[in-house]
Amino acid sequence: MNIINQRDRLLTDMMAGIEQAYPQLKRSTQTRGFSDRAFHEQNILVVSGGGSGHEPADWGFVGSGMLTGAIMGEVFTPPTADEIVAFVSQITNRQQVFLIVKNFPADVTNFTQAKQQLTSSGWEVGMCVVTDDISVDNASLKKRRRGVAGTVLVAKIIGEAARKGATMEELNELAARLLTEVKTIGVAFSGAYIPASNQQTFYLKDDEIFYGAGIHGEPGYRKEKFQSSELLAEELVKKLQLNFRWRPGETYAVLVNSLGGITTMESMIFNNDVLQLLELENVAVAFDKVGTFMAANGMRGLSLTLLRLHDEQCLTALNATVNTPAWN
Amino acid sequence: MNIINQRDRLLTDMMAGIEQAYPQLKRSTQTRGFSDRAFHEQNILVVSGGGSGHEPADWGFVGSGMLTGAIMGEVFTPPTADEIVAFVSQITNRQQVFLIVKNFPADVTNFTQAKQQLTSSGWEVGMCVVTDDISVDNASLKKRRRGVAGTVLVAKIIGEAARKGATMEELNELAARLLTEVKTIGVAFSGAYIPASNQQTFYLKDDEIFYGAGIHGEPGYRKEKFQSSELLAEELVKKLQLNFRWRPGETYAVLVNSLGGITTMESMIFNNDVLQLLELENVAVAFDKVGTFMAANGMRGLSLTLLRLHDEQCLTALNATVNTPAWN
Repeated sequence: MNIINQRDRLLTDMMAGIEQAYPQLKRSTQTRGFSDRAFHEQNILVVSGGGSGHEPADWGFVGSGMLTGAIMGEVFTPPTADEIVAFVSQITNRQQVFLIVKNFPADVTNFTQAKQQLTSSGWEVGMCVVTDDISVDNASLKKRRRGVAGTVLVAKIIGEAARKGATMEELNELAARLLTEVKTIGVAFSGAYIPASNQQTFYLKDDEIFYGAGIHGEPGYRKEKFQSSELLAEELVKKLQLNFRWRPGETYAVLVNSLGGITTMESMIFNNDVLQLLELENVAVAFDKVGTFMAANGMRGLSLTLLRLHDEQCLTALNATVNTPAWN
Repeated sequence: MNIINQRDRLLTDMMAGIEQAYPQLKRSTQTRGFSDRAFHEQNILVVSGGGSGHEPADWGFVGSGMLTGAIMGEVFTPPTADEIVAFVSQITNRQQVFLIVKNFPADVTNFTQAKQQLTSSGWEVGMCVVTDDISVDNASLKKRRRGVAGTVLVAKIIGEAARKGATMEELNELAARLLTEVKTIGVAFSGAYIPASNQQTFYLKDDEIFYGAGIHGEPGYRKEKFQSSELLAEELVKKLQLNFRWRPGETYAVLVNSLGGITTMESMIFNNDVLQLLELENVAVAFDKVGTFMAANGMRGLSLTLLRLHDEQCLTALNATVNTPAWN
């Protein structure tokens, strides 16, 4: 059951609701985008986007010090290159934009094409493709490297650097440094809802969890019976450890993200279990954030993101105050 | 399925998770409470609390300009009077506190007793009991008048007044004016989870909704098949209209609260439907807020709160910036 009206009006209805709830967001007249009314012309624009269904991503992060604008497409379908170009061009004549893209084929194609079009029109365009998902595909045994909740941490750090007046070269360098250091693993307790088919992407038994599920309700790498928050935390922390190969004394930021349907109590209990395991590993946690940042359209589940911190710049950026709908 | 560990450790585990996610909250050493580290001694304390299971209520509203502290009991069970007294006394020697209480028998009993004990110890204590629920009990045909999501708006306005230096008399007067003007109606799509019995409070069919359900998963006044967000909004707005008997030109604040399990897209679509109906009624909406503020421990559902605004003070207070975990 979904609290919607006609399925072909999902985006229109939602955008009208967002516009009224957040007067600080300026709705694009031609595209499905929102930008920051308080944008300072002296800064480089930072723009993200992708399919809808991940709310509050990405419009929930629009605000000075995070995203200048966010553009969405239909559920789980990114905006076209033309839409991205039209949206970015509408915000300002500043002609410098940094694009934060989640690593999915259609997203990368459309944003890359938009980058080319903007460049042809005289814009200077920086871009990063976030590949934080460390889950492994069962068939190919390759890491999926999708862009998931870690994208939000990247947006916060890049957005703060832009607010402080970073150059395009500095933003590109910062992004390159961040991308290797942010890793996420997700787990689902149900499939995600697909409005077009009115189906879920998969069905699980009660008490069954699916490790490695994606933010579009893609199947994971292993199903098992759920036992406890502690054992869930152990599985996810272990997978992250295998990917980071951390050493005692390293410092991390933690993001516990509800993909949907998780209570705050559950998120906090899981957060505590994660932090206890990291403490046992002798890695320091300098930043810890819990909430709903990038959801999966009704899929019950959560993801755990770690970002290895090498310097004060990233931590300061994560802690900087912003006025956005969903990061506070 | 719940992401927990042992059921008798729910509160301990959650509080450890909260403490680490929100360093600005100071955990009480003896009770299940959190207070604002940045509390200014010159202000009257504003404290709320009740059973847990409603997270982010009430600790999510601790911060300057909202609550000074929040204390919780077990799931759906308020803290005892002794716990409330111990918690309040720990925060400061200021000896002036305003208590915001949700209207449930055990909550009112325990907070009233705490008020008496504090008064005996030389404290000046103000108190209000929020009764915003307008749903009707099927047997008695009486309004239930429970304290539900409207309590959050009361906390924001009272908290801001206290931050600005209001006297106890002013806080009592302000609360008295607010209480008649805030009304809420909720709807459930599932029962709430009760850890002690490992059961839900009721079970609904797929696509069935239960009007008037409470924040502890109490049954509502009518079940029917869910049809659309618009029709849901019509039912809830009509019930509020019957209670407010509004006239064209009146001004309201709107709070769309997820009780759990609702996607941001759904909340925004519903928000838009509500605002369209209010526009048709020629009542103005000067403030609109959407999110998860007072949940019902895993009960899927939402509530709609309206607050009739008579002056600029309340609107200014609602709009004032705060640094709390859950109101931003």
